[in-house]
Parts: sequence; C-alpha cells; structure tokens
Amino acid sequence: MRESRTTFRVRFGETDMAGIVFYPNFFAYFDLATQALFAGGPVDLPAQMKSGGFGFPIVESGAKFLAPLFYDDEITIVTTVAELRARSLRVEHAVHRGDVLCATGFETRVHGRKKTDGSGVEVTPIPPELTSWLSGSTPA
Amino acid sequence: MRESRTTFRVRFGETDMAGIVFYPNFFAYFDLATQALFAGGPVDLPAQMKSGGFGFPIVESGAKFLAPLFYDDEITIVTTVAELRARSLRVEHAVHRGDVLCATGFETRVHGRKKTDGSGVEVTPIPPELTSWLSGSTPA
Amino acid sequence: MRESRTTFRVRFGETDMAGIVFYPNFFAYFDLATQALFAGGPVDLPAQMKSGGFGFPIVESGAKFLAPLFYDDEITIVTTVAELRARSLRVEHAVHRGDVLCATGFETRVHGRKKTDGSGVEVTPIPPELTSWLSGSTPA
Amino acid sequence: MRESRTTFRVRFGETDMAGIVFYPNFFAYFDLATQALFAGGPVDLPAQMKSGGFGFPIVESGAKFLAPLFYDDEITIVTTVAELRARSLRVEHAVHRGDVLCATGFETRVHGRKKTDGSGVEVTPIPPELTSWLSGSTPA
Repeated sequence: MRESRTTFRVRFGETDMAGIVFYPNFFAYFDLATQALFAGGPVDLPAQMKSGGFGFPIVESGAKFLAPLFYDDEITIVTTVAELRARSLRVEHAVHRGDVLCATGFETRVHGRKKTDGSGVEVTPIPPELTSWLSGSTPA
Repeated sequence: MRESRTTFRVRFGETDMAGIVFYPNFFAYFDLATQALFAGGPVDLPAQMKSGGFGFPIVESGAKFLAPLFYDDEITIVTTVAELRARSLRVEHAVHRGDVLCATGFETRVHGRKKTDGSGVEVTPIPPELTSWLSGSTPA
Repeated sequence: MRESRTTFRVRFGETDMAGIVFYPNFFAYFDLATQALFAGGPVDLPAQMKSGGFGFPIVESGAKFLAPLFYDDEITIVTTVAELRARSLRVEHAVHRGDVLCATGFETRVHGRKKTDGSGVEVTPIPPELTSWLSGSTPA
Repeated sequence: MRESRTTFRVRFGETDMAGIVFYPNFFAYFDLATQALFAGGPVDLPAQMKSGGFGFPIVESGAKFLAPLFYDDEITIVTTVAELRARSLRVEHAVHRGDVLCATGFETRVHGRKKTDGSGVEVTPIPPELTSWLSGSTPA
C-alpha cells in the first residue's frame, strides 16, 4: 500500500500555554499529511476541490499522544494507506521526532462531494487510477 | 454610529507557549466582533455568505497590543463603526479585560462578493437599509 | 457520573473552503467542553495550570463525524464522565445541533503536570474532592 | 538591513468558507516569517524562549490585503528589518504568489521577557551581536 513521509517544523502558534503543541493541531498535521500523500498521486485533489468536485471528507479520526511536541521540533509523519475500499479508505499516521514516536493516529475518509441541493454528501467510488495508485500497484 | 459589545472568555487553545494569547488570535477576535456587530442588524450576513452572496471582505487591518490576554480571561470587545462609505466601512475595536484596555485595532472592509468567473471580488454599494442601520439612524 | 452541557456558535474562522467546520476544530470544541465540565467543579484548574500546577494532559482522543457543522450553527456539546480511575479519566462528547447529532467523541486524560526537570509528565492521583465531584457524588 | 525569504504552501485548514485564507492567518504567516528571519541569526531564540529567556513580544501589527490566497498556493514572504532601535524593531513583510503581491504588513516587536513576578514584560536592549546581524553588518 502507498506510504508517504511529510517533514516540517512545529510553528510557534501551534503551541499552547502548557508549552507544547495543542492537541487538536495533531489532527491538523494528519490532514496535512493526508493531503501530502495524495499530492504524489495521479489526481489533482486541490484543483478538484476548488472547483466543487470530489474530495475525501472525514468520517472518523483518532490519535494516541505518546510524547509532547515542542516549538521548532522537526517532525516526520509517516502516512500509510491501511485499508482501501470501494468508496473509502483508512490512513494511519505515525508522528516521529528523531527516534521518538510522539503520536499515532488514523483517519477514515470517504470519496465524496457536497450535493448541489445542500442535502449532504454524495459518496462515490474512488476512481480506478487513484485506487491503483493508493494500493501501490502503480509507481510513485 | 452603531456600536456593539461582544463578551467571551479566552480559550485554552488560543494561548501559546509564552502563556498568553497568540497575537493573530486578536484578529480572529476582531472578526468575531465584527460578525457580532452585523448580527444585530437588518441583513442576515451568515445566510447571505453561505449562498454565495455579499459579505464584507477585509482589505486592511491593524492592532496595538497593550496588555497580554490569558486563558480564561473574560474580555469585552467594544466595536464601533468609525467610517462609513458607499462601498466600504472601517470598524474600530477596543479589547477590555475589566478596567484594563488590552488592545485596540481596526478593520477596513468592502461590501463585495467573489465574481463567478473567479477573477476577483465584485465590490458594490452597501444597501441603504444596512447603511442606515450602521450609521445608527435606525434603532437597534 | 458528572455531565455538563456547553452551548456556543460556530465561528466563521473555524470553517474551511469546503464550507464546513475544519475537522480538527471538533477536537478544539472537545477541549473547550472538557474545560467547561471542570469549571463547574471544586478545583480552579485554569489558575492551577497558570501557576504550573496539575492539569489533565491528553493521552488519547477520537471522534466520529456524522453531520457537518456550518458557520453560525448553535451547537450544544453534552460531555459525560464515562470512566474515572485513580489517575485518569475518559470523557465522552456528543455534539448536537438542534435534533441532529453531528459528532461523537472521547478524550482520555491523565492527572499530571510537567516535571520541573523537563523529563516528561508527572502523573498523580486525582484529588479525592475532585474524584467525588466528577463521580457525581457531590452536588453540582 | 537584514532580509529573509520564507516559502511554503497554504494549508487546507488555513482557508475559510469563503474559499480563501482566513485573514488572521496572514498574521500567523508574519509570525512564522519573523521567526524564520531570526533563525538565520546568531541567537537561538526558540531555545531561549523555551527556557523563559528573552524573545520579541509584539506591540503592533498591521496588514493590507491585496489579493486572496488559496489552498495549496505556494507563497514567498519577503521579510525586511525596516527599523532597528535599542530595544525594539520593525519588520516589514511582503507576501508574494509568483508575480502577484498578495499582502503587505509589518510587526513592531520589543526585546523582552515576562517578569518572574508576573507584573508584565521586562524590556531590555537587543544584544549587540544580534543588532549587528539584524542591521546586516555581519554576514548571513
């Protein structure tokens, strides 16, 4: 299955008065890492989302916080496609600072877009070329 | 000119590792206070913005930071319409914690919406009933 | 077990380009709701945290997203103490907009504070009066 | 005077329901760019701030918003030391997306740290080696 690595530094504004990263920002990091995973693939999701097309809305997420993150820490998120279904996928994230595993987490997302009549989300199969790429069957 | 007061408490997640509110959040407070100002008026801006109608995009903003804000501080923002033009307005904000004036700031906003062809913002006159209300000529 | 309700409106800045609340903000709402739960109790946690004392650092969190939240939605979070142990607790959150259950989630938190030598978190038993209050044995 | 360039991409979570970057995030970008300016210099400010030492608290900031920023835009912030005084400095920021100047802004910051008795900020002269570096008298 496809895997990606995203490396960046913790921003000052992502910390809180406890001196560590405010925990909801770990999920913002997960979102960032998932976008980075897709950025390597065959579909231009940002362009598609800007024009009202399909994206991957979240349906479930969770995290375990093992060690705090501090301002200016360089972290690497290893993101792996853990489950790939017709209309959804589960990605797993591991947040590393050097040798320390600081957090693990997951996101379950569906392939969908907002209905034009505002009645909710239209869920639809992940296109074959994207499925193939996410499964690792096609080269990066 | 119209004036409004918005009172709320500083959230934990709005602080940073220095133990005080991260300064960009003062501008998020200003945005909140400006939305609260309009919420008292004759136009349902949230509904209008959700349907792609007119809103008040920002063109300039600034702030002076006089005293830090801490988690759980109860603050009141006094927001005043300082200038009212055909297509724009300037609102001024004063952030108070009890007797302490913690920050002052302003926002200049135009009355507009995104062009459907994506080429930018269409700026248009503020509707008369809203101008009248913002000027304080009509009762709150 | 203790339960609390927290009601507020979705802020404009909490939405994203999909027109709905950016999912990490649900966890910021959970944090807010947990702080509100404790605010009703016998310990002044904000004061304690400001002076470097004990708080409730997060160790695990998760959420299911059932319906999107929109700008200006009035939401109520029902927060319940689901498990109460000597040094930790699990709170569960349900996010309601009127009759619609929009999300459910949980947080597992330990009672602790940063060690003064910077080597991590010192975990310690939850004080009896707080345990008693969280269990609902003492009146709100 | 010292100048630095910071390049990064707009994150999905930094946008709002208008489809563009929520304006307070421009100030978060300015903060990021100022930290990046200092990162090239002779003082390890993140380490100093973590240990309760001196930093550069903000006293004033402002911005003009010339063109919106969108998700995934690659932007470069050019940050320049515009004024350098004994105890404060003013940096100016220009946010570019390719050939388009999207925003300009400034920050005025003092050299200081929180007093240990909690009574406010102790402002002190910028150390000579940092002044020299900020003025561009010493090589990058």
